[in-house]
Amino acid sequence: LNSSPKYYQFSNDIIAKIRDGSFLPGMKIPSENEIIGRYRVSNTTARKILQRIESAGLATRVKGKGTYVNSYNIKRSANRILSFTRNMLESGHTPATEVLDARTIDKGYSSTINGRRYSIQGPAFKVRRLRFADDTPILLETRYISVALCPGIQERDFEGSLYDMYHHYGHRLTEIDQMLSTCMIGAGLKEFFDVSGPAPAFRLESVTFCEKEMVLEIEDSIYRGDKYRFAVRALPQAHPFP
Amino acid sequence: LNSSPKYYQFSNDIIAKIRDGSFLPGMKIPSENEIIGRYRVSNTTARKILQRIESAGLATRVKGKGTYVNSYNIKRSANRILSFTRNMLESGHTPATEVLDARTIDKGYSSTINGRRYSIQGPAFKVRRLRFADDTPILLETRYISVALCPGIQERDFEGSLYDMYHHYGHRLTEIDQMLSTCMIGAGLKEFFDVSGPAPAFRLESVTFCEKEMVLEIEDSIYRGDKYRFAVRALPQAHPFP
Repeated sequence: LNSSPKYYQFSNDIIAKIRDGSFLPGMKIPSENEIIGRYRVSNTTARKILQRIESAGLATRVKGKGTYVNSYNIKRSANRILSFTRNMLESGHTPATEVLDARTIDKGYSSTINGRRYSIQGPAFKVRRLRFADDTPILLETRYISVALCPGIQERDFEGSLYDMYHHYGHRLTEIDQMLSTCMIGAGLKEFFDVSGPAPAFRLESVTFCEKEMVLEIEDSIYRGDKYRFAVRALPQAHPFP
Repeated sequence: LNSSPKYYQFSNDIIAKIRDGSFLPGMKIPSENEIIGRYRVSNTTARKILQRIESAGLATRVKGKGTYVNSYNIKRSANRILSFTRNMLESGHTPATEVLDARTIDKGYSSTINGRRYSIQGPAFKVRRLRFADDTPILLETRYISVALCPGIQERDFEGSLYDMYHHYGHRLTEIDQMLSTCMIGAGLKEFFDVSGPAPAFRLESVTFCEKEMVLEIEDSIYRGDKYRFAVRALPQAHPFP
């Protein structure tokens, strides 16, 4: 007594196999002809099944080759100033945030990023948050914020976008210098992430400037390597050669 | 009977300790006052010692704090189109290249980068190279090149910069779209890199376009995570908020 259309039932069948790992990222799912044979449907229905899976963002059809399972990875464009929340929504995930720590650091904070030393004169405000996509912890974010540039920040709420908060303070972000390195999710980080055994991760350290080249924020965050990939576009400069 | 100046001998002494790991990245080396006390030199000589170490790119002086050992990591700017050789020379390392494989792939090559499928119609030319900094293997590079855009590439020499080669073919690189993910240097990659035990690495997949948006090259390379870090600059776009 299942009244949902055939294409819906059978696409759900394939979607379940993608979700449970029977079809892994990069693998082919059944072709139009294989679907016709396996589910005994018309080629119109077979096409609708593949279209539904593709439009759900789960797979990509390559003309003349087949339909391949997309990677679960979340793409984060490193060239863009982009909030976590917006990044999640753009990738089709439901974001959530857990504030782990929020406190004033009287002596301020300093860090060396891309060979330069940056400092926030004390006091700095430290916010550490664990961020989730669809209930999976994927990003452990630690940000140090200039209290001089954000007076009264101690009274704020840190569940949402700090970029929005800076905007409300009237700051215009002018540049973010970022340094991407790798690390392992080992003993010290396992408690935050749902991983068994050592796994690679990205460490993203960055300094955010607002108007007049003032350091608004210094960040030191861990991105799960199995969930994230960074997109970077390089364009030619004055002297790209040799 | 050592006639080299004192500042030179004593800075070599500290440099040797940086190279052998007695002073690790991020650690302080002796201050001006400690050098005066330890080596019994004038403050002018102590200053010259610190200046020589800093100008060799081995440490960074932080005003009022001390002089800190730089990370051994090689910075690669992800926003720039930059040859390995030039990147090495800019970071003060001696580059070397070993060609592992160079052959024609009749059916061409395809790859999905940042969610888009890119193809080089056959034949493609595959060049796999292991690249060294100061005799340490740090990058395993695999590049697939359009033979249609580089006729006669089979006869070329692959020890040097492929960017130079493209330049000689008259191609102008217009854009590189890159995707950075993490992987482990496990069983399959250990043979190339001098590492014991699993270590994190960057995987950089990219597509390089030349004039008329033609795909000149697709790359799939492994960068040792303990040696590399990627610098990325983000600038505001039309709508950076929320």
